Amino acid sequence: MTSDLSNVRALTFDVFGTVVDWRSSVSAEVAAFLKRHGVEADAGMFTDRWRREGYAGGMRLVRDGELPFQTADQLHLRMLKILLEELSIEAEEAEVEELNRAWHRLHPWIDSPGGLQRLRSRFVVSTLSNGNVDLLVNMARFGGLPWDCVLSAQITGAFKPEPQCYQRAAELLGCQSHEVMMVAAHQGDLLAAAETGMRTAFVPRPDEAGPNFPVDLTPDPSFDIVATDFHDMAAQLDC
Amino acid sequence: MTSDLSNVRALTFDVFGTVVDWRSSVSAEVAAFLKRHGVEADAGMFTDRWRREGYAGGMRLVRDGELPFQTADQLHLRMLKILLEELSIEAEEAEVEELNRAWHRLHPWIDSPGGLQRLRSRFVVSTLSNGNVDLLVNMARFGGLPWDCVLSAQITGAFKPEPQCYQRAAELLGCQSHEVMMVAAHQGDLLAAAETGMRTAFVPRPDEAGPNFPVDLTPDPSFDIVATDFHDMAAQLDC
Repeated sequence: MTSDLSNVRALTFDVFGTVVDWRSSVSAEVAAFLKRHGVEADAGMFTDRWRREGYAGGMRLVRDGELPFQTADQLHLRMLKILLEELSIEAEEAEVEELNRAWHRLHPWIDSPGGLQRLRSRFVVSTLSNGNVDLLVNMARFGGLPWDCVLSAQITGAFKPEPQCYQRAAELLGCQSHEVMMVAAHQGDLLAAAETGMRTAFVPRPDEAGPNFPVDLTPDPSFDIVATDFHDMAAQLDC
Repeated sequence: MTSDLSNVRALTFDVFGTVVDWRSSVSAEVAAFLKRHGVEADAGMFTDRWRREGYAGGMRLVRDGELPFQTADQLHLRMLKILLEELSIEAEEAEVEELNRAWHRLHPWIDSPGGLQRLRSRFVVSTLSNGNVDLLVNMARFGGLPWDCVLSAQITGAFKPEPQCYQRAAELLGCQSHEVMMVAAHQGDLLAAAETGMRTAFVPRPDEAGPNFPVDLTPDPSFDIVATDFHDMAAQLDC
């Protein structure tokens, strides 16, 4: 561990894509749903749009003041209804709600539970996600993710990448910003965290995006750590 | 389990006194501190006043608007300085801060880690404490408390027994109030939770209070469950 990082006491993790494989998990539930309704459509593309337009796009609308602050569940449900309407699928409200909760049942990357456990031996490990608290709690129980603490935009009152989200998280963890390291597979998240004084660990997940929207994973040279997975990160941090 | 409780999905726990034995834990650190400074004083009474006047009394001052909202750590530190001044003890700031953090190192009651693990097999288990988040996280790591989620007045923005504290906790857990059961050794906490629609479990802890301020532990007849410890509670809830 470089001396530069010796003050780090807590790690805050992006979750969707960094800790769990949302695309495969949700696509599988979407495919089953479409089949049940006799609809031929690309479950991967459905999932990509659900995430890009519903979640990421929805949070942008919230940040721009075009939608009131709402949970990830609510943003997901809003987009799901749009997608179902486009495909002319009429489903019972309960079935739609159940599909929407696919985002509570995301499978961890294979190194996540064990890697987090190793990192936890030395650091406080917390989520810092735009997902709502109960979604993150259910996902942790589903995937065996040993969080010390579940922090979320729903708690900080601001979505990432707004600076208040990172600043409030550090405060709740009883830390100065430079004592917290943000961990993410997404460079924008890390650059925003660094702006508030946090340390950064980039853990690229080449299998996250799928074929439709490839992402450049060349690391920004400013990151404190670049790791291939959480075990590699633990090794670099002497855990 | 009575049919009445079949909708309960999450348990929220008071922590100081209900899950951990604050008095013995803190008294031991106070006694060592006093001895180091050559002061003869009753460590148990020091601890009782620290808690009653500093924590409980401090929160009352916050609720009454006489102090701004602040963390349990800050309220503890404020009172600790008063107590040290009364005893004419002059200590380094770092030593005072370290003693103040005795509240992060509280030993669980013997049934707490195992009982919580049993309850967790069936319910989401969360703190709902007036302690600050990092205090609760450190305490959980110190005592091996397997929380799914750490909720606190610092997150809900209101101290118990204000109704907003319970209501916001239920919301963050994605539950209606009647789907959440408050668990506490303190009847006032439970009665306030019940006012917001929560279910209640009373787990009296006869060894909490110590000899100076005895408490009547005769249960209010309104509680949904009365249990001798968390294992008994788990058994009553078929865990």
